[in-house]
Amino acid sequence: MTHYAEEMEQLKASLLSMASHAESAVARSIRALVERDDALARQVVADDNVIDQLEIEIDDIAIHLLAKAPLATDLRLTAVAMKISQNLERVGDSAVTIARRAVDLGAEPQLKPYVDIPRMAAMSLEMLRDSISAFIDRDPAKARAVVPRDSDVDNLNRQLHRELSSYMVERPATITRCLHLMVISKSLERVADHATNIAEEVVYLYEAIDIRHAAQKPNEAQNPDR
Amino acid sequence: MTHYAEEMEQLKASLLSMASHAESAVARSIRALVERDDALARQVVADDNVIDQLEIEIDDIAIHLLAKAPLATDLRLTAVAMKISQNLERVGDSAVTIARRAVDLGAEPQLKPYVDIPRMAAMSLEMLRDSISAFIDRDPAKARAVVPRDSDVDNLNRQLHRELSSYMVERPATITRCLHLMVISKSLERVADHATNIAEEVVYLYEAIDIRHAAQKPNEAQNPDR
Repeated sequence: MTHYAEEMEQLKASLLSMASHAESAVARSIRALVERDDALARQVVADDNVIDQLEIEIDDIAIHLLAKAPLATDLRLTAVAMKISQNLERVGDSAVTIARRAVDLGAEPQLKPYVDIPRMAAMSLEMLRDSISAFIDRDPAKARAVVPRDSDVDNLNRQLHRELSSYMVERPATITRCLHLMVISKSLERVADHATNIAEEVVYLYEAIDIRHAAQKPNEAQNPDR
Repeated sequence: MTHYAEEMEQLKASLLSMASHAESAVARSIRALVERDDALARQVVADDNVIDQLEIEIDDIAIHLLAKAPLATDLRLTAVAMKISQNLERVGDSAVTIARRAVDLGAEPQLKPYVDIPRMAAMSLEMLRDSISAFIDRDPAKARAVVPRDSDVDNLNRQLHRELSSYMVERPATITRCLHLMVISKSLERVADHATNIAEEVVYLYEAIDIRHAAQKPNEAQNPDR
């Protein structure tokens, strides 16, 4: 077996392992739910870094395989472009979700003026713009600066979720509308997630290091075993 | 400029166009929400096929670029492996979400026995298993059979969402728990989505046709312009 074929087999094996871990994670999280088993649920959370590490490993192998073609830089840029495209497609889906909920909300009296949602939209879209221009301009510093802003959007989403929950308890008649607003808020949080994904890919592309899971595992960011 | 460099420029241009469309879609959906503009919201939904088409176009260009390397089949397989990996990483995230909500739910009295959620989990995980084995076994027919099952999971999620909404209205004290269950149900629906994404990639890989958006646009599936 050639070295290339060997690496291809390794890629498949890692992928199967990742599938198995991910499947097990879901199955165990459901078991934790049904059996009210807190320890198991926490274990699933703790084990997620195995899946993260497998993803990094698979990406490394895949990019290594792609890089055997003569124009390695262009191939990597191409692969990242495909991932960006996938993220953007999902941003489009988020927009559709928001639009559908907007239709539903439009059929009922407005709960209150929208303040936080437009603010979240502005933040998310600015992140998206910056991550895309970082890609086009080969600017990893700009991409890196997008990543920490995701937590601002997450915090706004959580705050809105809390406010809407309280509102639902106080005024059950507003439940349906509050649920629509929660979905919208979550959709915007996902847009910021996609922008962050793109930014992380761009940093990876131009700095050749992987910061994707660094926030969760700071000590492993410079792990020489990778 | 070489033909290769020209294609790379085309890829970047299409990506910028897609980013612009996606950004505009979100901005308009929010404007539709704030201004209670139904027609605008419906327009955003209708325009989503532009983003979908751009994704397909970008994938085509990217794969064409990758295919200029000597081992075209292996490169395509590699690119799909990277996409599968990305989907699996998000399946892992769904498991974490479910696990965290299971912890929250474990701290409160159980609402009622869980019936639909384990059923959804079983369906989603079976889809995931089938899509992965279709990839490994080069079995596009198996992958194709995964896709229609996604709507069964979607329907269960919607049904559960409706039941929980009614329950919240009747018993506001259960609102927090119902919201946790909604998030869990949605997370499982996303697992099925990821399985479907993978299955669609596998069909594409082995049959060299793109069925990803065929359900939304049946007339364009055999469009000779693609």
